Amino acid sequence: MAPFRVLGMTDVLLRGGRPWGQESSADILIRGGQIDHVGSGVDAPDASVIDITGQLVLPGLVEAHCHLDKTLYGGPWVPHSADDTLAGRIGNDLSRRAELGVPSVERVTALLRRMSAYGTTQVRTHTDIDPLVGLRGVEAVREAAAGVPVDVRQVAFPQHGLLTNPGTAELLEEALKGGVEAVGGLDPAGIDRDPVRHLDLIFGLAERYGAHLDIHLHDGGSLGGWELELITERTRVLGLGGRVTVSHAYALGQLDDAHLDRLAHGFAEAGVALATAAVYSFPVPPLKRLRAAGVTVACGHDGVRDLWGPYGSGDMLERAMHLAYRSTFRADDDIELALEAATYGGARVLGLDGYGLAPGDRADLVVVPASGPAEAVVVHPARTLVMKDGTVLHN
Amino acid sequence: MAPFRVLGMTDVLLRGGRPWGQESSADILIRGGQIDHVGSGVDAPDASVIDITGQLVLPGLVEAHCHLDKTLYGGPWVPHSADDTLAGRIGNDLSRRAELGVPSVERVTALLRRMSAYGTTQVRTHTDIDPLVGLRGVEAVREAAAGVPVDVRQVAFPQHGLLTNPGTAELLEEALKGGVEAVGGLDPAGIDRDPVRHLDLIFGLAERYGAHLDIHLHDGGSLGGWELELITERTRVLGLGGRVTVSHAYALGQLDDAHLDRLAHGFAEAGVALATAAVYSFPVPPLKRLRAAGVTVACGHDGVRDLWGPYGSGDMLERAMHLAYRSTFRADDDIELALEAATYGGARVLGLDGYGLAPGDRADLVVVPASGPAEAVVVHPARTLVMKDGTVLHN
Ligand SMILES: [Zn+2]
Ligand SMILES: [Zn+2]
Repeated sequence: MAPFRVLGMTDVLLRGGRPWGQESSADILIRGGQIDHVGSGVDAPDASVIDITGQLVLPGLVEAHCHLDKTLYGGPWVPHSADDTLAGRIGNDLSRRAELGVPSVERVTALLRRMSAYGTTQVRTHTDIDPLVGLRGVEAVREAAAGVPVDVRQVAFPQHGLLTNPGTAELLEEALKGGVEAVGGLDPAGIDRDPVRHLDLIFGLAERYGAHLDIHLHDGGSLGGWELELITERTRVLGLGGRVTVSHAYALGQLDDAHLDRLAHGFAEAGVALATAAVYSFPVPPLKRLRAAGVTVACGHDGVRDLWGPYGSGDMLERAMHLAYRSTFRADDDIELALEAATYGGARVLGLDGYGLAPGDRADLVVVPASGPAEAVVVHPARTLVMKDGTVLHN
Repeated sequence: MAPFRVLGMTDVLLRGGRPWGQESSADILIRGGQIDHVGSGVDAPDASVIDITGQLVLPGLVEAHCHLDKTLYGGPWVPHSADDTLAGRIGNDLSRRAELGVPSVERVTALLRRMSAYGTTQVRTHTDIDPLVGLRGVEAVREAAAGVPVDVRQVAFPQHGLLTNPGTAELLEEALKGGVEAVGGLDPAGIDRDPVRHLDLIFGLAERYGAHLDIHLHDGGSLGGWELELITERTRVLGLGGRVTVSHAYALGQLDDAHLDRLAHGFAEAGVALATAAVYSFPVPPLKRLRAAGVTVACGHDGVRDLWGPYGSGDMLERAMHLAYRSTFRADDDIELALEAATYGGARVLGLDGYGLAPGDRADLVVVPASGPAEAVVVHPARTLVMKDGTVLHN
């Protein structure tokens, strides 16, 4: 991939590509940062013309769940040093982040640039907030994001406990006052030990500040299933539909079909979305069944190269491959669901307006040398072109 | 990666690399297709010197389980057309392979070239044999392999049933007479319906022809566990230790620890090896536990871009990543076990002599820009150099 190249805000005509979801190829005229026109034989004498004949055009990829503030990306290899327990990983994180200079504006910038080169244009990241790190992570992510052509939204994330870590709730509130877009939660039962108070606290913050809510839920089986009911009830009663996401929700990959269908129906009705990363061997929520029930599903990396684990590339097409692969999707239509999670699903979770490939949508685009969405996911080839708000970044 | 470039059989001095498993960097002198000398400050005035300072040197990667004959690699994207059952996939395979020109020397060649570019120097491939295709797959693979610098060993594989598909056993025997190195099996209980006769037949062939044995075993839970006992018993009684491999062995990812340890002990004692591909969401045999018990474990892709599924790149470092990832390995030492499966483990399964990085070993090498084995697996970066039998292929 060529280094950063900004063509500036002239009109651009993408000639001959195949916009995802359309039967035939079409020209796409980009003007003033928006998609102006999509059709055949578009004429625009003043536009820079880029020939992408036969290539697939996707809307900008959406990274809906990551942890930019934790990343060591772009630095030397750091051998993993935590033991195999969640408590061990939390303790290791706390003890080593100062030594390794985490959070680091430089590292976050390196990862965001890589994500952008892969065609990601929108990111939701869960930023650690606790009495030790305070809001330094929030500030580091903000500073890095200001220098990279990716829109970044943060979740104020109580990684080291909420009720169990005094002072954290106040800091979450301070973050929301300071403009952070969403409030997070973390295993209200399994880690924070008091699911009702935990959820009431974060739902209260979301309501008071008009914020989104995105809750990490690793708790499995019937415990996780029950917490999902608590989350659905609160979303419905408080009318927060469309603003609530549960991340990971491993329990959904473990419950029986009847229980799953009941929960899925509740999510769709109340407006609870899911975000999945399909990491390691952890259970993956049944994407096809959830989508059939009308539930919004988004996709993200979770950690990329950090103290929690060394994996992750920043490529959302590769991440969609992992989701499709772990879902044992072989048919094109099924694999396409994973791409939908990495695009439209993420856009719905982030609450984006004007996302897509229609006239009037913002011109966030990726061009991929693939015959269709399934090949784009499975092969995740090098990107031909990435455009953010009408500006060609990588080409 | 630059296209194929053959420097020829002059002596080569790889300067300043870090051979895997050694504490410090070393020069490697290659002479007559073998590793001649490994040490510091090696002097060889007549050798072509290639500076690989600071890069990791691995022995050639070993693809221990694939299906070259089925591949559509290098051709246009073929949407998956089978239903979600094993019977559906078998039927789809039978009905579409003629239409798509499978087996194809051209496709097999394309995949082998890609594997070689990624540093694979040794391949074991399971080739379909049945009364319809006869030995055409065996011949196609042989023809393709003759034109690519990769050593290919075949398993005569009864993909479409053995006892249940009259005429197949005779063809397997014909293949062995014709020099095919190993005989295969396929779910002696779950698919072929008569595990004792199935196993007795293929063990008999292996004994009679001095062949290796490599048995596909998808049967899970206690059924699969019991079949593994039958296989271990026969290996021990017939003294075939070191020549028997079970591929996939999903059951090992499902049994309780006591049962698993009992089986693992039997494998180690009798000389039964395992090959895993870590595909989709299927259970992965517990690599760390098996290695601790002294069991040989190898790694492969299983299918690459074929009628059974569209995934797979041919890159054994990426495949090792899947194995490490599905094993939830985070620590460097654990991740290294996956690389061991993709190298030394595979070499043991294939029965290779002179495999490794010591003087006297054949000069099959890969050079990777990585700080160590864990980074090589996780990042699987583009290869710096691939050498086969002392000849630099990709550089
Ligand atoms: Zn997370
Ligand atoms: Zn196989």
